[in-house]
Amino acid sequence: MADGRLESQIKFIVEIDKLKNVFRQTYLMNGKRRENDAEHSWHLAVMAVLLSEYATEKDIDVLRVVRMVLIHDIVEIDAGDTFVYDRAETRNGPTEEREAADRIFSILPDDQAQEMIALWEEFEARETPEALFAAALDRLQPMLHNYQTGGGAWRDHGITGDRVIERNKHMGDGAPRLWEYAEKIVRDAVEKGYLEG
Amino acid sequence: MADGRLESQIKFIVEIDKLKNVFRQTYLMNGKRRENDAEHSWHLAVMAVLLSEYATEKDIDVLRVVRMVLIHDIVEIDAGDTFVYDRAETRNGPTEEREAADRIFSILPDDQAQEMIALWEEFEARETPEALFAAALDRLQPMLHNYQTGGGAWRDHGITGDRVIERNKHMGDGAPRLWEYAEKIVRDAVEKGYLEG
Repeated sequence: MADGRLESQIKFIVEIDKLKNVFRQTYLMNGKRRENDAEHSWHLAVMAVLLSEYATEKDIDVLRVVRMVLIHDIVEIDAGDTFVYDRAETRNGPTEEREAADRIFSILPDDQAQEMIALWEEFEARETPEALFAAALDRLQPMLHNYQTGGGAWRDHGITGDRVIERNKHMGDGAPRLWEYAEKIVRDAVEKGYLEG
Repeated sequence: MADGRLESQIKFIVEIDKLKNVFRQTYLMNGKRRENDAEHSWHLAVMAVLLSEYATEKDIDVLRVVRMVLIHDIVEIDAGDTFVYDRAETRNGPTEEREAADRIFSILPDDQAQEMIALWEEFEARETPEALFAAALDRLQPMLHNYQTGGGAWRDHGITGDRVIERNKHMGDGAPRLWEYAEKIVRDAVEKGYLEG
């Protein structure tokens, strides 16, 4: 129904609809159900637009951050969601996610497939200012959800305040002011009993 | 827990979580449930990134389009979803959506509130190349969903092919190649019996 290029792009757009069925540990802020990866990615993209002033690098490329957060979880269509507090042995291996990235992004025309794979690798490597900032948002968002739901996924999994600090402190590299805010949330959550001390 | 500016931004980020509970007429492509506005907005943002080459204006500002589609439905938190094929008298009035925009975006610091309201107005006015392209994506996406689900929301509401063409033809202003593709989908849907002729 279209030339090959547009046909491949539409096929990819249809494929990634599946991200709406990949559920995370995090609850919606009303506590009624778990959040899916598409909703999470939308929320991060809005946060990237509104909070870019807090990125460590002042002239950060906001479109690059947005593109990264929009596609960062697409590999989970095949590999499934990994809870950030899972122990190393139960998390997705790099091979599983790499195969997912290759399969899914390769539906796109070659130039865009390469571009999206490079963007996903950049996010995963967490080295550029854009990737460090994107990673900070990816950690702040579920912390807000857990705080707003009186513990939420933290409570389900018996996570302690120290563990939250330990697993998320890299936020400070990408967005120091947001990490300072997140630390206050954690202390407050421990005080309120949302989170074990 | 934060200075006023960051506090207002976080408050907005918490408020818009409600968009995940605003359901549309469109079904997910697996047909299992209706799609919500947050998922829809994520899908449009990815489409904006991947399909910008089809915009009428060649050097379109992609970040502007992405920002627009990310926030275009936020007013529906208060005003509710409007089905594109509803008759004029049952659709949200401009007053209702305007009040919603004022209430929700005004949670943000003044500069960002003004910026977001202007962006929403730009989307609604459908005059700039970015708004015309954003509007084209906003129409193409549910057409793909309805096509993939063998009629989906079209079938539920007894929509005819002529009506789909009539209500969506403005896509041609923002993205002629995508409108050409959409027209082919509609013809094919009528042929397959997904859509009344």
